[in-house]
Amino acid sequence: MLKAPQHQVAGHEAAGIGKLGPLVDESGHFYKPLQGDKRGSNEVAFYTSLSTNSEIPEHIQRFFPRFYGTQHIEASDGSGLRPHLVLEDLALGRANPSIMDIKIGSRTWAPESSEKYVEKCLKKDRESSSLPLGFRISGLQIYRSKELGFWKPGKKAAMKLSTEEVKLVLRRFISSNTLDDLDLKPDCAFASTVYGGSTGILSQLLELKAWFEDQTIYHLYSCSILVSFEKELALEGKDPGAQIKLIDFAHVYEGRGVIDHNFLGGLCSLIKFISEILTAPGECKIEVSAKADQKDLTHSANGVVADQKSLTDAVNGVVADQKNLAESDNGVVVDQKNITNSVNGIVADQKNLAESDNGVVVDQKNVTNSVNGVVADQKNLTDSVNGVS
Amino acid sequence: MLKAPQHQVAGHEAAGIGKLGPLVDESGHFYKPLQGDKRGSNEVAFYTSLSTNSEIPEHIQRFFPRFYGTQHIEASDGSGLRPHLVLEDLALGRANPSIMDIKIGSRTWAPESSEKYVEKCLKKDRESSSLPLGFRISGLQIYRSKELGFWKPGKKAAMKLSTEEVKLVLRRFISSNTLDDLDLKPDCAFASTVYGGSTGILSQLLELKAWFEDQTIYHLYSCSILVSFEKELALEGKDPGAQIKLIDFAHVYEGRGVIDHNFLGGLCSLIKFISEILTAPGECKIEVSAKADQKDLTHSANGVVADQKSLTDAVNGVVADQKNLAESDNGVVVDQKNITNSVNGIVADQKNLAESDNGVVVDQKNVTNSVNGVVADQKNLTDSVNGVS
Repeated sequence: MLKAPQHQVAGHEAAGIGKLGPLVDESGHFYKPLQGDKRGSNEVAFYTSLSTNSEIPEHIQRFFPRFYGTQHIEASDGSGLRPHLVLEDLALGRANPSIMDIKIGSRTWAPESSEKYVEKCLKKDRESSSLPLGFRISGLQIYRSKELGFWKPGKKAAMKLSTEEVKLVLRRFISSNTLDDLDLKPDCAFASTVYGGSTGILSQLLELKAWFEDQTIYHLYSCSILVSFEKELALEGKDPGAQIKLIDFAHVYEGRGVIDHNFLGGLCSLIKFISEILTAPGECKIEVSAKADQKDLTHSANGVVADQKSLTDAVNGVVADQKNLAESDNGVVVDQKNITNSVNGIVADQKNLAESDNGVVVDQKNVTNSVNGVVADQKNLTDSVNGVS
Repeated sequence: MLKAPQHQVAGHEAAGIGKLGPLVDESGHFYKPLQGDKRGSNEVAFYTSLSTNSEIPEHIQRFFPRFYGTQHIEASDGSGLRPHLVLEDLALGRANPSIMDIKIGSRTWAPESSEKYVEKCLKKDRESSSLPLGFRISGLQIYRSKELGFWKPGKKAAMKLSTEEVKLVLRRFISSNTLDDLDLKPDCAFASTVYGGSTGILSQLLELKAWFEDQTIYHLYSCSILVSFEKELALEGKDPGAQIKLIDFAHVYEGRGVIDHNFLGGLCSLIKFISEILTAPGECKIEVSAKADQKDLTHSANGVVADQKSLTDAVNGVVADQKNLAESDNGVVVDQKNITNSVNGIVADQKNLAESDNGVVVDQKNVTNSVNGVVADQKNLTDSVNGVS
């Protein structure tokens, strides 16, 4: 019985009805539909090359999903038989994994790419954190608790995090005290067991780095490192199964005698971020660079606004972690309490929402009105009009 | 007494009469004219910050030219007093240094740059080896002998070298057998004394790399590593004075908590090239990738050859855009027609040249003979021997 994977944080999801996306079976296979154009054949060629290339040492092979060839199966969108890559299901055996999908490299396009493709990618690289940071978080979910489920910010918001916000997210990822209240300063309780240690994330990243300093076989563009672990195991004092896996190889090129300096640079940048947490887990600046730590903010337009209290208006931007927001238009709004109005955007994880129009609203309690949008997982909803509830 | 530096391989040269460029005095100072726009003040700000920042360890400070402030001196172009950066003259005490100016980073522009500047730089990065290799050779001179002087290919040709050509140049740089005959496979005779050893180039590059993996103070765009040594000392079995220095800081930005992943990636790529020479000095592929579009080519060895017709012989150098070339040995030859012989030198833009040996020859018409000297801008020259004309 094939079904949509439960823990997809980025990429093409099959979760929506009638959408093409990956599928998993119960014996640990992950079926990824081949993209119709050159990307599909590129990815097959890469996995085939990787699995047969004796120059890739075993301790590096383990960072890639196992490859079981390709297979025609019924596509998730009901469009009939379609070729799929058959890969290892990386979430197999994981109950509630915390996951980050981190796209590596300040440049997601190859020198050989077409003008049109370069333009498209460059725009995204410049708008996201790829250019300044050398990587971007393409998606993430952090397990909080059975009651609260996952903290799963929107992909667009995740992509554009500033340096300080990325630092915050990387700390929140391995903290215990943000389970109930995202307002708290992350305690980095699992830093040493997840990021640190001889088998931890940092150690794995350093192994990968050593290989990238030397290998001239592949150049990986737009490829991600999937970082995951099980918070519940960490809480119980067990091995949390911290692991990194490389995924997404639709844009792999031959190295032709040159190292993948683009991937390596981004990887080193990520390593530096993780190292800093291990060196000084207590030194987390909560303030973010865009507009930070403001209290009693009256208006905020067109920008990232985070961690404020008593905001009156916020327009056209990402708004996060605030309390007592009066109005928010046209943007992503997450994790707030006591919001009065929110129009045309994604609103998530709030309590005591009075009104929400035209957008996706999830995980809230005590919503009074929600119009024209998707509303999910709520309690005590009074009105929901014209949408899926 | 100020004069133009003798061993400038890239950047703005003052060699031409009436051109603005750097000057040197006899006590080891290098005067670099401040660029009028923001670049000038940026570079002063960088040197000031660097020389006063106690976070930069001494073993890293030594990779930068010493800074002696700024000073108003008579500009080289005769335009009067002008502010100059006063720096350490890196060529002081060097008789015949072999030098490479290697611009580091696949991207020479900062995320903060203006649209227009990004476009300009991106074009150059894509046309040069910066994008594929993570660095480009902005200029070089390799000392051959007292008789032959330096091998100094054109900057434009150097910038665009392919992977295999860069490998060849990096080997030629530390070889002894290319003194007389650039046609020979480089013997890499000085690889271990110049690139290798505890104080050699590779060791210095690795020290720099370790710092770049950690430092988040500066992001250096369009900055070069100047690699130099004295071949004559190496031949005598003495310490060849192999050194790297970072130069050109008109495009330095604050790191703001992020490592310079762009510089680091390019640096690691260069390190890999140098390491390979030390690991396998004998494995130099002579065939080069860029040989394109020529018709009726009889011989062409070891160099870049492009767009010509009816070429008979072209050896060991960059040869471009000519027609009806009979012979061209060991040098850069561009844009001429009906040339009969050209040996060992730079020959450019002439027509109907009969012979030109061992020197720089530019912009003339109907030259019959030119031996051992610089010849410029004349018409109908019959003989010019051993001198400047």
